[in-house]
Amino acid sequence: MQGDSYILGMVGLGTMGRNLLLNMADHGFKVAGHDKDASKVELLGKEAVKGDVKGFTSLQEFIGSLQKPRAVMLLVPAGKIVDSAIAEIAPLLDKGDLIIDGGNSHFTDTNRRAEELKNKGLHFFGMGVSGGEEGARKGPSMMPGGDPQAYKVVQPIFEAIAAKVKGDPCVTYIGPGSSGHFVKMVHNGIEYGLMQLIAETYEVMQKGLNLPGDQIQSIFKQWNEGRLQSFLVEITRDIFGFKAPGASHLLLNDIKDEARSKGTGKWTSQVAMDLQLPIPTIDTAVSMRDLSKYKALRTKASALYKDGALKITADQTKFIQSLEEALYFSTVLAYAQGMHLLSQASAEYGYALKMDDIALIWRGGCIIRSTFLEDIYQAYKKDNQLPHLLLDAGIAQKVNGVIGGMRQVVSAATAAGIAIPAYTASLSYFDAFRSERMPSNLIQAQRDYFGAHTYELIGKEGVFHTQWFTK
Amino acid sequence: MQGDSYILGMVGLGTMGRNLLLNMADHGFKVAGHDKDASKVELLGKEAVKGDVKGFTSLQEFIGSLQKPRAVMLLVPAGKIVDSAIAEIAPLLDKGDLIIDGGNSHFTDTNRRAEELKNKGLHFFGMGVSGGEEGARKGPSMMPGGDPQAYKVVQPIFEAIAAKVKGDPCVTYIGPGSSGHFVKMVHNGIEYGLMQLIAETYEVMQKGLNLPGDQIQSIFKQWNEGRLQSFLVEITRDIFGFKAPGASHLLLNDIKDEARSKGTGKWTSQVAMDLQLPIPTIDTAVSMRDLSKYKALRTKASALYKDGALKITADQTKFIQSLEEALYFSTVLAYAQGMHLLSQASAEYGYALKMDDIALIWRGGCIIRSTFLEDIYQAYKKDNQLPHLLLDAGIAQKVNGVIGGMRQVVSAATAAGIAIPAYTASLSYFDAFRSERMPSNLIQAQRDYFGAHTYELIGKEGVFHTQWFTK
Repeated sequence: MQGDSYILGMVGLGTMGRNLLLNMADHGFKVAGHDKDASKVELLGKEAVKGDVKGFTSLQEFIGSLQKPRAVMLLVPAGKIVDSAIAEIAPLLDKGDLIIDGGNSHFTDTNRRAEELKNKGLHFFGMGVSGGEEGARKGPSMMPGGDPQAYKVVQPIFEAIAAKVKGDPCVTYIGPGSSGHFVKMVHNGIEYGLMQLIAETYEVMQKGLNLPGDQIQSIFKQWNEGRLQSFLVEITRDIFGFKAPGASHLLLNDIKDEARSKGTGKWTSQVAMDLQLPIPTIDTAVSMRDLSKYKALRTKASALYKDGALKITADQTKFIQSLEEALYFSTVLAYAQGMHLLSQASAEYGYALKMDDIALIWRGGCIIRSTFLEDIYQAYKKDNQLPHLLLDAGIAQKVNGVIGGMRQVVSAATAAGIAIPAYTASLSYFDAFRSERMPSNLIQAQRDYFGAHTYELIGKEGVFHTQWFTK
Repeated sequence: MQGDSYILGMVGLGTMGRNLLLNMADHGFKVAGHDKDASKVELLGKEAVKGDVKGFTSLQEFIGSLQKPRAVMLLVPAGKIVDSAIAEIAPLLDKGDLIIDGGNSHFTDTNRRAEELKNKGLHFFGMGVSGGEEGARKGPSMMPGGDPQAYKVVQPIFEAIAAKVKGDPCVTYIGPGSSGHFVKMVHNGIEYGLMQLIAETYEVMQKGLNLPGDQIQSIFKQWNEGRLQSFLVEITRDIFGFKAPGASHLLLNDIKDEARSKGTGKWTSQVAMDLQLPIPTIDTAVSMRDLSKYKALRTKASALYKDGALKITADQTKFIQSLEEALYFSTVLAYAQGMHLLSQASAEYGYALKMDDIALIWRGGCIIRSTFLEDIYQAYKKDNQLPHLLLDAGIAQKVNGVIGGMRQVVSAATAAGIAIPAYTASLSYFDAFRSERMPSNLIQAQRDYFGAHTYELIGKEGVFHTQWFTK
């Protein structure tokens, strides 16, 4: 029998799947790919300029070509397609083989699939892959979760193809079960937050300060050379330098202001609510993508509600400095909320996450890579049980240095009528988070008043109910 | 055979169940109650001072005592207990009998139960009941959804016991399927928003203006006589007049600042995200209840982050006027977001909601009853297809009149470091909602840049992809 030839097989030869295979081939791994769509198999053949990579349209031949124990990786759209792909593939595999789902599956699906396949003697990995098409080709960040023994089989491949930061590969074994997909989901939630914050910064620059595109470009360029350095700031800089084809204005100006989404941001917010863990900056980013789609309503509302000067009259140079501080502040808050969610999920689901490792592998390859992740890494390296990023002394010092700018930007934009929902969500969360006493005692009193839901007292055990009104 | 005696039977004789039964008895209906807990059956007997109401510990005797077609109402905790109650009761019923779930069940559970019972020839109603214990006893607001024919059997009972506003009973047939529970869930979501807004108002008054409790009480008293008149403002007034037993300070001051919740607010936010409909004021209220529970973290953070004067230096009398405008503005926004969610759900789930009727039955009996609901009622009465409450000309005029105060409060509290997350979420939502053009085009450009997710162009059909970077 043949079947001992390729070390890993990829099912789904879209851009991500092809690029990952080519990346593996670059690093000397013999790999195979399968897609029912012959044109994609053909494309893989054309793009494979070096290394040993082969495409198959026949699933049987593809499986037969793999070295045992087989490692089959799926890169197909999340949802039912993953289930039907597994249903086709699993019967062709032997006990001890490994299936890796590299898509953005919901972590509860991953739990279910791991259980189903375990009963068939197959290993199953949920692995988040971030970095977009370029990352997949040149070095992504990867978050694999599942049986640690099974991971050892594929570890050399993933460590070879991952992005590297200071020599460390941007991949590590995340933890058991669905932890890999969970961590990737939260990565995407943070990504939603950061993208919304940058969009609001653009809003302030364009509507509030009336800055032209080239000036916005040079500001993002400058910021990207400092503490705000990050992939998302870098590409924003590029976007503000990209002219519409054959025109002198920015392509950006021609793009519709309706943001799409694929669900991972929404899942992050929904799961956080189930865990009763607040991540309002991310929630707001999800809401604003949703609001962007109500174009017709917004157009009507703009005629009815004309208040607000929309101009910020502060000294421009100084205000741009404050804006840098505000974006830095909010960026810290978005990461801090995401990391807090990871800590909570780790305890709740038994993931035993190594928070420092996660920060480490996010420093390169992925969409939220940034200089600030080094700070996060250092904070959790010092204390992996750190309950919240804002409680690290080093982070606190940095945050305290930029609060002034943050407050100035929020006050000015609010007064001018410029919408900065993720900025305000970040600042409000921060101010509530640093409140030893919140006004939530009133909410408990109200709940007890109308619903006899009881309340607790400071310094006294038990729950209490008061007849607040006269019957 | 006996069994033609009682017109309605209640399963679950907690406070709500007993009070509803007593309310029915007050209105001359012969009703029965069942609870396995004999002490509750006994309590019902003691409380039943007039009318014809009888309690049973035996489920068989209870069912046997009901007039046909039987109407059995459940008031038991949401979740599995509803399923087990139905499993016990259904076999004792005959075709054409009706089960009403009066608890706060998730609407998807209601859909499932309706389908299961339909297969057994039984009618099933999901009915939201609001008003707390006092409302149940003296006149609640009720939101029944299900088969309209089955509703006719119990309609006289519910119309008799409901709260009345200008002679109209605060109950109406909401629509098919789970619409009753859905509408009640959104009612509760709005309730979360309003309670959080009032709590933040208290925060501004106490931390920012340093007002004593009796002055806060008199402000809420005054506000409750104007456009802010509402049940929640009214009970807040009372709470600020309620001294701790045997002490001269407010009981409120002794209550822990950790707010509890039973899930309906969270469900509202999660469902809104599934429907891609933004309700950030409500989301924020959910988040802040969650944050309130992280007392230990907040205490640590308060030592690390001390910035902010926490004092508002504006003229106090004028600022309190602005605060009234700000609370009015935010209140409108909380209702508007909730109503928008109802409109969207109505289209998505085929509920065919009569928006004006919903506003009508919320004007009395329920927790969110308020003078402003009359405005909402008038807006939807004029146009039941109104796509968003903020697009009604009358509402727009009122909102435009208070934006100035809203901006002043948000600016001042933000500068002082006072946490007002639901206020800022409301204002930011409003400013984004009135933006004909949002900065979301940048998000689409970024998504296309890193993930080849494509974008749309203004005035040009199709989707486009750009190679933003040089490979």
